[in-house]
Amino acid sequence: MSAGTPHPFDPATAEEIASAADAIKALFNGIPLHFKAAGIDEPPKQAMLEFLDAEHSGRPLPLVPRCIFLIWYIKSTPRLFEGIVDVTHGKVVYHKELPRDFHGPVDRIELGQAAEVVMADEGVQREIKRLNLDNTTIVLDPWDYGVDGHETQERHTQVFMYMRNPKNNNPDSNHYSFPLDFMVIVDLCAMKVKRIIRLPLGSDETTTPLGSNVPHPHVDPVEPEYAHELQKVSPRTTLKPYQVVQPEGASFTVAGNLIEWEKWRFRVGFNWREGMTLHDLSFDGKSNFYRLSLSEMFVPYGDPRNPIYRKGAFDLGNVGAGVTANNLQLGCDCLGMIKYLDGCVISPDGTPAPRPNAICIHEVDNGIQWKHTNHRTGRAVVVRKRQLVLQTIITVANYEYIFAWYFDQSGELTFETRATGILSTQPIAKDVKVPWGTRVADGVMAPYHQHLFNLRIDPAVGGNRNSFALTDSVAMPWDAQLNPLGTGYVTQETVVERGGPLDDDVARGRVFKILNESITNPVSLTPVGYKLVPHRSQMLLAHPGTWHARRSEFATHPIWVTPYADRQLFPAGEYTNQGLGGYGIASWLDPESPYNRERPRDNSVPGRPVVRDTDIVVWHTYGLTHNPRVEDFPVMPAEIVQIHLKPYNFCEFNPTNDVPPSTQDKNQSQEYKGPEEKELAARGKVCCQSNL
Amino acid sequence: MSAGTPHPFDPATAEEIASAADAIKALFNGIPLHFKAAGIDEPPKQAMLEFLDAEHSGRPLPLVPRCIFLIWYIKSTPRLFEGIVDVTHGKVVYHKELPRDFHGPVDRIELGQAAEVVMADEGVQREIKRLNLDNTTIVLDPWDYGVDGHETQERHTQVFMYMRNPKNNNPDSNHYSFPLDFMVIVDLCAMKVKRIIRLPLGSDETTTPLGSNVPHPHVDPVEPEYAHELQKVSPRTTLKPYQVVQPEGASFTVAGNLIEWEKWRFRVGFNWREGMTLHDLSFDGKSNFYRLSLSEMFVPYGDPRNPIYRKGAFDLGNVGAGVTANNLQLGCDCLGMIKYLDGCVISPDGTPAPRPNAICIHEVDNGIQWKHTNHRTGRAVVVRKRQLVLQTIITVANYEYIFAWYFDQSGELTFETRATGILSTQPIAKDVKVPWGTRVADGVMAPYHQHLFNLRIDPAVGGNRNSFALTDSVAMPWDAQLNPLGTGYVTQETVVERGGPLDDDVARGRVFKILNESITNPVSLTPVGYKLVPHRSQMLLAHPGTWHARRSEFATHPIWVTPYADRQLFPAGEYTNQGLGGYGIASWLDPESPYNRERPRDNSVPGRPVVRDTDIVVWHTYGLTHNPRVEDFPVMPAEIVQIHLKPYNFCEFNPTNDVPPSTQDKNQSQEYKGPEEKELAARGKVCCQSNL
Repeated sequence: MSAGTPHPFDPATAEEIASAADAIKALFNGIPLHFKAAGIDEPPKQAMLEFLDAEHSGRPLPLVPRCIFLIWYIKSTPRLFEGIVDVTHGKVVYHKELPRDFHGPVDRIELGQAAEVVMADEGVQREIKRLNLDNTTIVLDPWDYGVDGHETQERHTQVFMYMRNPKNNNPDSNHYSFPLDFMVIVDLCAMKVKRIIRLPLGSDETTTPLGSNVPHPHVDPVEPEYAHELQKVSPRTTLKPYQVVQPEGASFTVAGNLIEWEKWRFRVGFNWREGMTLHDLSFDGKSNFYRLSLSEMFVPYGDPRNPIYRKGAFDLGNVGAGVTANNLQLGCDCLGMIKYLDGCVISPDGTPAPRPNAICIHEVDNGIQWKHTNHRTGRAVVVRKRQLVLQTIITVANYEYIFAWYFDQSGELTFETRATGILSTQPIAKDVKVPWGTRVADGVMAPYHQHLFNLRIDPAVGGNRNSFALTDSVAMPWDAQLNPLGTGYVTQETVVERGGPLDDDVARGRVFKILNESITNPVSLTPVGYKLVPHRSQMLLAHPGTWHARRSEFATHPIWVTPYADRQLFPAGEYTNQGLGGYGIASWLDPESPYNRERPRDNSVPGRPVVRDTDIVVWHTYGLTHNPRVEDFPVMPAEIVQIHLKPYNFCEFNPTNDVPPSTQDKNQSQEYKGPEEKELAARGKVCCQSNL
Repeated sequence: MSAGTPHPFDPATAEEIASAADAIKALFNGIPLHFKAAGIDEPPKQAMLEFLDAEHSGRPLPLVPRCIFLIWYIKSTPRLFEGIVDVTHGKVVYHKELPRDFHGPVDRIELGQAAEVVMADEGVQREIKRLNLDNTTIVLDPWDYGVDGHETQERHTQVFMYMRNPKNNNPDSNHYSFPLDFMVIVDLCAMKVKRIIRLPLGSDETTTPLGSNVPHPHVDPVEPEYAHELQKVSPRTTLKPYQVVQPEGASFTVAGNLIEWEKWRFRVGFNWREGMTLHDLSFDGKSNFYRLSLSEMFVPYGDPRNPIYRKGAFDLGNVGAGVTANNLQLGCDCLGMIKYLDGCVISPDGTPAPRPNAICIHEVDNGIQWKHTNHRTGRAVVVRKRQLVLQTIITVANYEYIFAWYFDQSGELTFETRATGILSTQPIAKDVKVPWGTRVADGVMAPYHQHLFNLRIDPAVGGNRNSFALTDSVAMPWDAQLNPLGTGYVTQETVVERGGPLDDDVARGRVFKILNESITNPVSLTPVGYKLVPHRSQMLLAHPGTWHARRSEFATHPIWVTPYADRQLFPAGEYTNQGLGGYGIASWLDPESPYNRERPRDNSVPGRPVVRDTDIVVWHTYGLTHNPRVEDFPVMPAEIVQIHLKPYNFCEFNPTNDVPPSTQDKNQSQEYKGPEEKELAARGKVCCQSNL
C-alpha cells in the first residue's frame, strides 16, 4: 500500500476496515454482530473518470471519499445487513436489512463451530462408532449449501465426512482418499445438527437406512497421499534445479499499487470477493481497460443423487477469492525476482484479517515473440517474449485455483485459470461404476462437475464509449467475375446494438471485438479495437428452471454485453450463498424481470438496453466440464485454460518491434554436452546468424 | 547422430544421402539429374514392431535395412521420378517415373535461377523503368504456384515483386513494406518468363493494362523495418536480462536420437518434408505413441482476384519443414541448457545439404503443476511444472513457423505452433479498403488467409490396437426419482467403428479419446486411454470443388481416423506442388474414389474401413484464420496455438505426485524491493507454510 492517502482504486486497508466496523458497531449500540465481509466500495464511475482525467493530466486531484462496503449479521440470528461507511468522513452513508432468504457468505470460523457441533452430536457419534474407526481421526469438510427449494430462510452448511489415512493418522494425510458413507446438515443459526444422511454406495440412489449396521466400505487406494513425506515412494531425484536469475533486477516498477512495465501502466486492487482486480489500464499511453476482474465462479456437480445434488458452490459469491487467497511464499509459487502485494479482509468480530502476500508479481520468459530470417542474406532477427505475471492462488476447501494475468509486450493480456488441488470425493462400493463419476481410487468416486467462470471486462478502448462486434469470416459466392476460382472470403462484422447474451460460432471463425467507433486507426482506416479470444467451452448442463440454472444466470452463454452500471459487478447476483436466483445478468437485461420491476432502469428506449457507442461491460463465461481422470488423484495436475485480449488495429505497427534482439550476451545459455561430446570444443558459431 | 549403425528411426545421414544419390545417378548413366528431395524411408510397421519388441526386451536386434527415399527430375525436363535406395545393401529397390501432372517440391536454387530470369526479362525491365525506382534495389519473392486448372503439366513459379526501402537500400530492409504493382510467372522447365501481370490496386479486380504508364503507388509506412539497426527508434532499454541457470545441468539425457526425461522415453527423427518427427514414445514404462508429426500445412489466401487467387501454399509438401529448418543459435532461440540435433537434406546436384542445429532441446519452468493447502493445518504443498521442449523453426519465404513439442511430467504432450515472420503483402491505392484484406501500412495491403495444419497422431496406447471414441457430457432427463433436482449429467461415449472425418461439438463438451479396449485401468475399471484436446478452429473457407478444396482434403474436418497403412503420411497426398488433388485423406477413405480404384484396399468388409480395436491413425486439422491486424506488421508477434494429448485413465494415480516440492533452497528466488522498501529487512518467512 502506498504511504499517505490511498488511491481510490487501492484495496481497503486494515485501518479502514477496522474503522468501518467500528462505525457499524456504534450504529448497533452494543448488540453483538457477526461480520461476514468488508472491502473497498469503489467510487461511481463518473467521479472516477473526473479523477483519472485529472491524474493522467497532472492536474490537482478532486477528493474521492474512501468508502468501505460491509455485510454483517446480528450474531446468532438470521438478520442480515449490508452497509457502506465513508471512512474519509467517518460516517455510515447507507445501510439496510436484507430479506430473510438472502444469506451472507460462509466463514471458516462459523464452519469450524459447525464441525464441533457435528462431532458432539449423538447421532453422528453412533454413525462413527458403527464404522469402527478406532485407529484414526475423523475429518470434516463443511461446504456451502446448494439450495433445493426447501427451508430457504434457514442458514445451512452441509458437512461431508472423511477420515485420516488409518496407516498414518497424520494431520496432513489426504482424507479425500477415505470418504465416510454419511454426511450431516447443520443449521448455522441454531448451531445444531439438522439431518444425518447416508450416501449412496452403489450405482443408483439407494442408501442404507440410518441406524442400520453397515460396515465401512473397503478402501485401499494405490497412492492415497500427496504430501511427500506420507507418500509410498520418495520424491524423484531426476529433476535438476532450474533457477531464474535477473542480475540487473526486475523490469517492472511498483509504486504503491501502481505498476509500470514495458509500455503498460495499471493499478492492482484487491477485495474479499473477487480477490485481485485490475484498474485504469493503458498500453503505450493509450487507455484500453477501465477494470478487469474474475466476477464469479460456479461449480455444479453432476451426481443426481441426494445429497450430492446440493453441491453447487459459488466460490466467489459464497466464499470469496480474497478471503481464501493464499499467503504466497518466496521460491515456491514463482521463480525469479518477485514483488508481493498484501490484502486485508475482515474477521467475524470486526477486526481486520490480513491476507499477506496475496498477489505475486514477476516476469517470465515465454519463448519467442517474433523471428524472421531473410533467406537472401541469412540474417535472422529474434526477439523473445517477456511477460509480466500477476498471480493469486485461492484454496476453497478441497480445490485450489491459480489465477494469473499475463501482460505481454505486444499489448496482449492473458487471463489464465489453473484448476488444481483435490477432487471432492464420495465412497463407492467395490467394482461399482456410475455414469456420473469416475472411480479415482479403490472405494473412492469423484463425481463429474463443471467449473463455470465469468470474466468481467469493463473496456475503455481509447475512451469509455465502446461498441462490441462479432466478426465472421465467410466465403464469397463463387462468381465468374468477382470470385473466379471460388477461393475468396471476406469478413462480416455485426456491431451489437442491444445488450444480451451472444453465442460463439467456431465454424464461422467468429472474432469478438471491442471497438471504439469514434477513433479510426490511421493505418487500417478502421476503428481501433481489442479482440477477446474466448475459451470455447461447454455451458451449464443443468436444465433450465433448475436451482442451479436460476442461480447462475451467466452460465448459459459464453458472452454477454451490458450497459455499464455502478456496482453491477456480479453476474449471479450479489448474494449467491443459498440464493434463489433471479438477480443475475439475465435479469438485469430483461425489462420484464421482477428484478427490474423493483429497480426501474432509466432507459428511454423500450426493450433491451442500447450497448452501441456507450459505456459497456463485456462478460465472458468459460468453463471446464471436469469428468475426473484417475490421473487427477490424489492431487490434480493443474488443468489450464487461457483467455486473451489482443490489440486489434489499436496500435500503428507491431508494438514489440523495438524489443531488443535476443542475444547470448544477455541470455547466457549453455550448450548441453553428452558424455561423448564433451571433448568436442565449441564450434565458434556467430550468434543469430543463420544460413537456412 | 549416434556412432555406428543408426537406429531405424534415425534421420538419414549425410553419408546415406550421398550414397543413395550416387546409386540413382548410376542408374541414369550420366544423364544430368536435378534432385528435389531425399530422406529416410521409414521401415514398414510390422518390421518395426518386431524390432522394437526386441529392443525393449533387450533381445538381439533383427536387421532392418536403412532405406532412403528420393525425388528427382531429369535436369531441365518435366520428367519426374521417385525411388528408394537400400543403402545397407547398396541397391535401388524401387523407382518409377511419375505422371506429367505430378510436380516435385520447389527448391531455392531453382527459384534463384527463376529470379535471375525475371530480372533479365525485357518486359520486366520496362515495368521497373516505368516505376522510376533508381534509388533502390528490386527484391523478388518467388512462390510455389497454386493451380487454376490451366497448363497443369508445366512447372511454374509465381514471382512477387518488391523493392528495398528506398531510404536505406539495405540488403536486410523489409521489402514487404514496399510492394510493386506487378508480378511475373515463370516456366521453370523452359526457365523463361511466361507472363507479367499487373496487380489490382483498388477495391475491385480492375488492373491497369500492361504497357500503360502508371506511376508507382505512394508508400510511406509508419515503421517499415523489423531489423533493429534499420528501425526509426532504437531498441528499448527498459528490459532487464533474464537468465535461466541450471547449476547441476539438464534433467534430460540424449544418446544419439534417444531422449529420456522424467518418465518419458522416445526417439527424435527428422526428414526433408515433416522436419522433426517423434517415434516410439512411452511414459512411465508404458507405450503411448508410435509416431507423431506435423503432416501438412496449407495456406490459402482469401483475396479473390487474379493473380492472388493462386496463392495457396503447402509449406510441407511443396517446400519441406526439414528443408527450411533454421540453424538455431545458442542464446537466441532458447534459454538455459540446450542440446541441438542436426538434420540433413539434399542439394539439387545430389550432394548432402546439412541442416545443423535443426532441433533444440531444453527444459522450461511452466509455473505450478499442482498445489494444495490443508486449511486445517495451514500446510501448503507446491510442485512446479517442469517441461521438456523440442523446438524447430522454419522459414518459408515471408513467414516463420515455430513448432514445439512440450513433454510434461504429467504424461501430457503439447504440440505448439507459433506463426510469426512477415505478412505477404500487396500494394493498395491511397484511402482504398478491401473486404478481404487489411491495410497494414501506407500503400500496403495484407490479404486475409488461412493457415490450416494437420497433426498426424499414430497412437500406441498400451499397444498398437487402439480405438477412437467421442465422449459427450449430456444432461440426464429431469426425473422425480433418478434426477430429482434436474442437475444430473452423464457421459455418452461413442466408439468410432469406421474410418472417416469426425466433427467437434463444443456445446456437448466433446472429448476425443484414443482407447485401448483390451486394457482395463484397475482403478477406474475403464479402458486406458489418451485424450486429444484439439485447437477448435474454422475449417477451409474455399468452396467445395475449388482447386483449394480438392488439393487440401484434410482441411474440411477437424478430426479424421484411418486404419494404419505404411507410407500413408501426408493427408493432402504425396505430391502437393501444383497438385490437382484427389490423393488425400478423403480419397483414401472413399471406396469409390479413383485413388482407391487404382490402389485396391485389402478390406473384406465393404464400405469405409474398420477402425475399431485395430492399428489406427488420428489426424487433427487445426487452423488460424488470419485476417491481419496492423499490429502484425512489419513483423508479426507470434500467434500461438496448442494441441494437447493427455493421459486419460492411463496411469493408476497422478504421475506427478513424486515430483519434489518447490523450495527456495532449490529455486533461489529473490524478493523485489521498491526504493522505499529496501530498508525493511526480510521478514523471516518459512517457505511453503501458508496460513490462509
